[in-house]
This record gives sequence, structure tokens and C-alpha cells, in this order.
Amino acid sequence: MLGDQLGDGQVVAACGGRGRCGRCLVRILSGAVSGADERELELLARRAAAGYRLACRVRVLGDVRVELGPPKGPDRLQVGGVLVAGELEPQPVVKQVQFQIDPPQVGERAGDADRVAAAVGAEQGHDLEVLRELSDRLRCWDFRGWAVIRGDEVIAVRPRRERLLGLAVDLGTTKLAGYLVDLDTGEIVESAAILNPQVSYGADVISRLGYASSSADNYRRIRGVLVKAVRDLASQLCHRAGCRVSDIQEAVVCGNTAMHHLFLGLPVGQLVRAPYVPALTAPVDVKARLLGLSFAPGAYVHLMPCIAGYVGGDHVAVILATRLHEYQGVALAIDVGTNTEIALVREGSVICCSCASGPAFEGGHVSRGMRALPGAIDRVWLDGDDIRFTVVGGGDPAGFCGGGLIDLLAVLLRAQIMDAGGRLRAGAPGVTEGPDGLEFRLGGVPLTQRDIRQLQLAKAAIRSGIEALLRTTGTRAEEVEKVYLAGAFGVAMEPENAMAVGMFPRLPRGCFVPVGNAAGMGACLTLISQNERLKAAQAARSAGYLELMTLPGYQELFLSCIGFTDRVSVP
Amino acid sequence: MLGDQLGDGQVVAACGGRGRCGRCLVRILSGAVSGADERELELLARRAAAGYRLACRVRVLGDVRVELGPPKGPDRLQVGGVLVAGELEPQPVVKQVQFQIDPPQVGERAGDADRVAAAVGAEQGHDLEVLRELSDRLRCWDFRGWAVIRGDEVIAVRPRRERLLGLAVDLGTTKLAGYLVDLDTGEIVESAAILNPQVSYGADVISRLGYASSSADNYRRIRGVLVKAVRDLASQLCHRAGCRVSDIQEAVVCGNTAMHHLFLGLPVGQLVRAPYVPALTAPVDVKARLLGLSFAPGAYVHLMPCIAGYVGGDHVAVILATRLHEYQGVALAIDVGTNTEIALVREGSVICCSCASGPAFEGGHVSRGMRALPGAIDRVWLDGDDIRFTVVGGGDPAGFCGGGLIDLLAVLLRAQIMDAGGRLRAGAPGVTEGPDGLEFRLGGVPLTQRDIRQLQLAKAAIRSGIEALLRTTGTRAEEVEKVYLAGAFGVAMEPENAMAVGMFPRLPRGCFVPVGNAAGMGACLTLISQNERLKAAQAARSAGYLELMTLPGYQELFLSCIGFTDRVSVP
Repeated sequence: MLGDQLGDGQVVAACGGRGRCGRCLVRILSGAVSGADERELELLARRAAAGYRLACRVRVLGDVRVELGPPKGPDRLQVGGVLVAGELEPQPVVKQVQFQIDPPQVGERAGDADRVAAAVGAEQGHDLEVLRELSDRLRCWDFRGWAVIRGDEVIAVRPRRERLLGLAVDLGTTKLAGYLVDLDTGEIVESAAILNPQVSYGADVISRLGYASSSADNYRRIRGVLVKAVRDLASQLCHRAGCRVSDIQEAVVCGNTAMHHLFLGLPVGQLVRAPYVPALTAPVDVKARLLGLSFAPGAYVHLMPCIAGYVGGDHVAVILATRLHEYQGVALAIDVGTNTEIALVREGSVICCSCASGPAFEGGHVSRGMRALPGAIDRVWLDGDDIRFTVVGGGDPAGFCGGGLIDLLAVLLRAQIMDAGGRLRAGAPGVTEGPDGLEFRLGGVPLTQRDIRQLQLAKAAIRSGIEALLRTTGTRAEEVEKVYLAGAFGVAMEPENAMAVGMFPRLPRGCFVPVGNAAGMGACLTLISQNERLKAAQAARSAGYLELMTLPGYQELFLSCIGFTDRVSVP
Repeated sequence: MLGDQLGDGQVVAACGGRGRCGRCLVRILSGAVSGADERELELLARRAAAGYRLACRVRVLGDVRVELGPPKGPDRLQVGGVLVAGELEPQPVVKQVQFQIDPPQVGERAGDADRVAAAVGAEQGHDLEVLRELSDRLRCWDFRGWAVIRGDEVIAVRPRRERLLGLAVDLGTTKLAGYLVDLDTGEIVESAAILNPQVSYGADVISRLGYASSSADNYRRIRGVLVKAVRDLASQLCHRAGCRVSDIQEAVVCGNTAMHHLFLGLPVGQLVRAPYVPALTAPVDVKARLLGLSFAPGAYVHLMPCIAGYVGGDHVAVILATRLHEYQGVALAIDVGTNTEIALVREGSVICCSCASGPAFEGGHVSRGMRALPGAIDRVWLDGDDIRFTVVGGGDPAGFCGGGLIDLLAVLLRAQIMDAGGRLRAGAPGVTEGPDGLEFRLGGVPLTQRDIRQLQLAKAAIRSGIEALLRTTGTRAEEVEKVYLAGAFGVAMEPENAMAVGMFPRLPRGCFVPVGNAAGMGACLTLISQNERLKAAQAARSAGYLELMTLPGYQELFLSCIGFTDRVSVP
């Protein structure tokens, strides 16, 4: 394939060349290549007409001239896993307006700020910090410049027109993803991710909320590291883009409800005790400086709305980025994590739930589990009777990441090394007696019987969530047309195997669409466009919420999903 | 008079029993007393019908039963020097709304704040600080309470309906006057005044601005003491009223443009250099906490608009409190101070100017000048050939306050001890040769020839300002129907004498109306009523401004006003 013939790093192949992520975009300028199949055309969408192809799907049939694009580097704006950069009309909440006022003459009674506000049509006047610097700046700049306006308020003044930059942040439990966006073009200028430093206070949300609600000092501490991390992330992005953090004119932040609350400094006591209600779900605009962030003098941070105590703004962003709220058939959006949020849409109505799936697919609770870092077994398959695998970065395997675990479970099942009840078969090839009972070793890395139980609970949590949504809406699994898989796990995982172990209902392979960091993309959309911001608010408000813990019959449903089989008999 | 027969401190007699301030209000319950003359009826206004009288004007003709009232203590709300408490319909920007929400049930997805906001109709939601405390409080208060709402925003929540309090502050150059106001009734609950601690950085505005603009540290320092003083004033008022500073839900601040800028932290460099323009004149609402004030969590401070670099929000407040902007004839409002602001209205159009009168009438620049504190000679009159005087607090005189100086000048003129040119006559009674030339001694306190020159410059500045306004508007002095005199000086001074020395044009004695701290009253009005707030903004916007320094012929006009005579021949 063309993708393999291009030099290393020339194209992004997030899905490993499997034609799933749509990111190895190239343009065929001349020469003969194979035709695009339906799947590729779907991923290319409107770009197909412009001659774009996916490098991993193109068979080269002679000499070809290829334009690499989009350039590697920052993430590209995606909707439903499809690049949309340049197709969405940017319509940000901030704009730049030029002004020039006459130097004041004797007898002038209007203040500097009054005259600038009138010149740029900012009825609400200036942010206080802008006021505090305006008069001196006007005199340096010969009484002209550019005002950045948000609504009716001047939030910054600058001597010349400059790039209008915004910041989108997805506050993940494990990872903070940041995007520096050009608000005039809608382009992602830089993107970066850093570890959420709150991991020092607990790997999962529950333990962090426990820590935060144990004392005011602890709350301050765990909030402080989060805010500092966002500051660091912004600083890193701006440094790379050659601008200052004070050039950020607007920010959008999404996160699960716990992250949202900790970031805003909202109380979390009521979030950790039944009935687990948020302090706030509505979207809110807060001056960045009130949160400890030094963006443009009067910049605001828009916090995306949450849906419920355990379905946060990150899931709203996923819904927005997958266009789930506009989908007219039946579709699912799933963000696998320690809490797995699932949304089901049926004829434009969205209902969601949160499953306590635990961190098994993220490297937690599994003795040799790890994230998809070098050394992780990320893919496992049967080659005749042999079990083969690949390791991230090559070399000796050190553990399993989520995608590798799903693959391995499916392989063990297929090779009858494990039964559908999740029991390892003593005496089967690779099964040995370990310190904690039976275990299966792959490349020397053990997967214990107890690990399998953890994975079983995790997948049962996810599957039972899906089944609960289907049942509540009176939907049969076969009606599901699309399953949007958000996050790295969605890209790294083989849906065929996830179906084989019963994590997802049996559906045609083509239904599964990995959409990458859809939460980040949704935050970017909300940053770029006021219309998208309204849509997000509307989607959050109108989404239904299903509380699994109190759903009648949920325990039975969960137990019926416990087997490693694609045949769930819903009670 | 009844006033003298009542015990000490039973009635307020701000004008010293001269029937001018209208504050020694009593109600005659039974018994025979003298009738009220026209002047008293004017001051009583609508209260006359309710049996009210001024204690200083009532001659007791038998046994009488008297109700003392209004009680002594805080200032009463005045408009044009007339009490209006209870007559102005309060219409504050904040209101209290009761709420009660259901305790959240399992499956509840809306946040606490969302449900409270919906219950009280606050579309904009809650201030961030309110959000941060709301959830815990709701659970203490059984999910009910009272929200304080400003516009669409919840700025405080409380367990029960409480007094809705506001703070009005007049930031004077010398004195900060504060009023704690019940926003539901419009009543002034407490009032107090403290020294402006900025006096340590200069007695007048110009020297303070010089200090402030000399370095960022100095700016911070001089701003810091001002903000701290406002905090102290608020604390003092709240302590007396038995409430907390955090009960203040809204504040209104007025001050001259320099005080306004220093309080907000606005730059002052452009204010001290020609053409002396403000950074901002428009009214502005700022979160109290951004200014360093800990009122209710989301409380705002409304800064009254300024008119020009040297006509500030305090003068707008004077215009508002005297109703000058609505006056259909010709009237003046004069606030004598280091800078004397004068506004002239003619058929509803206001034009104002600022005169650099200096501090001579406030105790500055006069060798034995002092404020109207114990020891100050406050009144001087001719009794035949004898010059008599009173001293504040009785006892030996230590110096002269403004009212005493005006009286003394008029007496010296009348007794021909001083000529109209301001020269002391050598050999006249009381005139001696002092270390600095001729001086006149009263009760042993000298008034030197140089002091007289200072007073002459001061009164010429004021008179030339009046004349400039008259001339610019084509008004003859005789057309002036009212002269509202703001501030303590207006109450303490005898207009007859001020006219005799040429400070004011010759007008019927009854034209002069002392209106007390009209700036403070205007701030109170702006605090109590949204309508008054709109009127103040409108008055500031529409007021004309006359810059004396560049007015053609102003120097000649000033010189023509230099003589101590009521006959000014305007060139």
C-alpha cells in the first residue's frame, strides 16, 4: 500500500494502517492507483472529490505523484471521525475590530475608554484589566489599534491585527488534552496532551473525590495541581506556536463532572454520596483570571455543560463531535474509560448512561495491564494454532494494553484455552499454575485467572449499559447502525474481537467508527462556533439519563452479560 | 425656641438652629406653639401636613407634648436639601426571591444550582462564589432559602429573608462618607464619615495624582489605603447596624475623577497632563471582589459616571440629588472644595465647570485656617462697632474655619478695616504689624494680609467660574432662581456675607439652599433606585462641560472677580 511505501512519519496512521482512522490523508496528483472502496469513500467524505485518498488503502499501480496532506503535526478537526477543517464556518464568540480615535484635545471630556468603546461598538465597555492598561497603550500606539470583543465587552486591546487564538481542553481523568485553535480559520494550530497530575491523588475519579472532600486543604491541593496543569498545557502549546498565553482570547473546557467541579472549585460532597447530584450542570462562562488562568486580560473560560453526576461535559463533547444528537437513525457513542459513558440516539433523541467499568482496559486492576506505551502487547491473533502478537515499539513485551487484552481474550476463547465462563482450561497450551492460580503466559507475560475476572466485570458493565439503553428505548441491537468509539481505546481495539467476547452486541463490522479524541474535537467545535456551542447546550439539556444503579432488573441484566460470548440473553 | 429647650443631643441642628438645614424635625402632639413661616414650610414640604415642625423655629406657648423625630443617628435621605425618605419608591437592582426545591432523588440529573436558578428565574445562573457554597448550604437549609438576584444572576443565597442592604460611598478628597441603606425601604440605616487616609500622600488631588503616577509601587500604595479605608468604613457601618459586611448586596461609589480612577485602579498619567482626559467616564459595574472588597459573594460596585477630568461622579451625584437636571428655570449647584465644581442649569440643560479654588475655605493655605472642629471660629458678626464671634465647642479660639473666614472678610469690609482690594488698613482697630506684614487679630487669632490674598484668589476662582457659566449660556445673574450649596461649607456659610465679599453674585437671600452632603445623597439615590441610576447616567452624558483654562478671556474674567465687592463688572 502507498502508506507503507512512504517514508516513516510522512503520514499519520493512528489506526495502524487499518483504514479506520482516516488520518493518513494524501492527494494523488498523477499516476495510476487502485480505486477506493465504500469504506474509504465514507471516511473521505467530501474530500474524495478533491482527489484525496487514504494512503493505507491505495495500491500503487505505476509512477504516482502524491501530495502529503494534511501535514503532520497537530490534530485536525474531526467530526464523526472525519476531518472537517476548513468546512465548518468559524463563528467564534470573540472578534477583532480595528479602531482609531482622535488624540484628545483640550476640552475633551469623554474618557479614553468611552471613545474606544463607541468606536468599536462595545456597549458593555471594557473588562477592568483592559481599562487599567488602555490609556497608556493608546498613547504608545498613536490612538489606534485592534480590540478583541466578546459580546459587548472589550476583553483585550492590541496594537495590530494578530491571530485570534482560542484554547480547547479536554480534562480527562488520566490525560489532559489541549488544542490551540485559530478562531478565524477554525484550524488547530497545536495540540498536546499531558498527564493529569491528580493521578497522585488516586487513579480514578472516586478516590480523587474522596480525597477532595476529606478536607478543605486537600480540596485546594487537588484543585491546584489541575489548574496548574492547564496553565502548563497552555504554556506548552503557546510556546510551540510562538505566541504568549495572554494571546488566548477564549477557552473551552470539557471534562467529566468530577473534573468539571474540581476545575471550577465547586463542592463535590454531594457528588460522592447518593443520589450523586452535580452542583451545576448548565454551561457557564467564567473569567479566566477567577480560575487562576492568565489568558487575555478579560478572557472567559466556557465550561461545557454536564448531563448528570457521572455523565460530564466530555461526553456532551463526544455527542457534539459525532453529531449523535442529529442522527436520525439508531446509533451509539461509547467512550470507554474507568467510567464508560454510553449514549444511544434513536430518531434524534439521545439517552445516556454511565457504567462503572473500572480501569481494566486502561491498564488498571490487571496484574500486567499497562497503557499503550512501548512494551505493551497491543495486538494478538491466531495464525493457525500459533498465537502471535505485536508489541508497541517492538522489543520484549512488558504487559498488555486494552486493545491487546480484548484480542487475547478473543483468541483464548477461539482456541478453547478459556471457556465462555472465563475459566482458563488447566493443561491447555500456555496455561500454567502461577502463584495466584492458573494463568496464561504470552511472550512470558502472564494473564491470571483473576485478571480475566476483572476484564469480565469490565466488559459486562459496558455491555449491560448498552443493553439497558436498548431495552429502555425498546430498540433491538440489530437496529444499531453506527457505534462511534471515542478515545484511544476505540482506535486501538478490534471490534470483531470485542464482539466475540461479548463486550458489544453482534453487528456488521462496518458499523464501528473509531472517532479518536471526540471529546477534544467537541470542545474545539464549541470553541470555534457559537452555533456549535448552542447545539452542545441543547444536546446536554435534552439528553435523557438512565441511572443504572437503580434501574429495576439491572443486576440480572449485568449477570446475563458476564459471559465471554456474543450471545447475551437479556432476561 | 423649642430646640433650645430640648435636652442636648435630642435633635440634630446641623445649621446651628438657623432654620436652614431642616434636620431638627419634631412632631407637635398637643399644646400651643407659634405658627410656621414660609421658609419653615418650604423645608418641611409634605411633612408639614403630618404635624411636623422644625424645633429651632417653634416658639412654645404653653405645655406641649412633642415626638422627637426623625430619630437622631444616621443621615436622612435628602433631595434638594429636603428629606425624601419614604417618598421615593425603592427600586433597587437587587431583589430577594424565596425558593424551595425538592431534595434530589436517585436519577436526578440536574445540578443543585440549575434547579435553584430555574426556581428563582435567574437565567444567567449564579456567581462563581455562590456556586462554590450553594450545594453544602442547600443541604443544611433543607433545600430552601432566599436568593439575592441582580439582573439574571444570583449573587447570594441566605437561609431566610433578611434586610437587603446596600452601601453608598462618597469618596471625597478629604473625607469618605458612607451610608448603609435598607434597599427595600430606601432608609439610611447608618451613616459615617472617616478621613481619607490618602491625605498622607498630599492634601489635594494634584499632589496625590503626582505621587500615584510616579511609580507603580506608589500607585499600589495610594490605591491600597483608599480601598482599605472603604473596607474600614463598611465594617464600621455594618458593626453599628449589627450586620456583616458580607450582607452588603450592592454598592454605589461616587467621587471626583481622580478618586474614581484611583479606586478602580485606572491609570492617572493622562489625567495630570494636558488635556487632562479621564481613562473612563461611563458608569461601570465591577464585581466587588475584583476591587478588594468582600461584600456578598457576587456583589457588584457601581461606579457613578464622571463628566470630565475635573468634574467627577460626586458632582453627578450632586446634580442628581438637587434635581438640577430636571430644573426648568435657571439654577446653580456649587460644591465648594479644593476644586469647586459648579453646574448651571438653564431650561433643563446642564453645563458645568471646575474651578481651582484651592483649599483656603477648607483650612488650607491660610495660616490659622482649620476645619470646623472645636476651637474654630465659625461665625463672626458686627454688633455696633464690636466684632463678635462664636467658637465651635466654646472655649478659646484656635483658628478659622471656612464659614468664619467668609463672615470675617465681610465684617472687615463693612467696618472698613479692609478695602475692596483686600488691603488691611494700617491703624484700623485690631490691625497690627505681624512678622509677615499687617494682620488682623480676632480673639488673638491672626488673619494675615497673605491669608487674605489666598482667600481672594479662592473666591475669585469660584466667582469667575460662575460668571463664565453665565456668560457662556447668555444668562444674567438676576435670572438665577436657586443656588444649591453642597457640602458642609454650604451649611456653615452665611450667603449674605459670601455675596458681600463677591464670592456669589447678588441674589435674594432666599435663593440659597444648603443641601448638605448632596453627593452622598445622590449616591444613595443611585443605590436605591434603578431609575435614579439611569437618570444619573443620562445627566452625566448630557451635561455640557466648560474648560476654564482655555476659555478665551478667562484670565480677564478672573481678574475682574478679584475684588471684595458684590459688583463685578464682567469685561
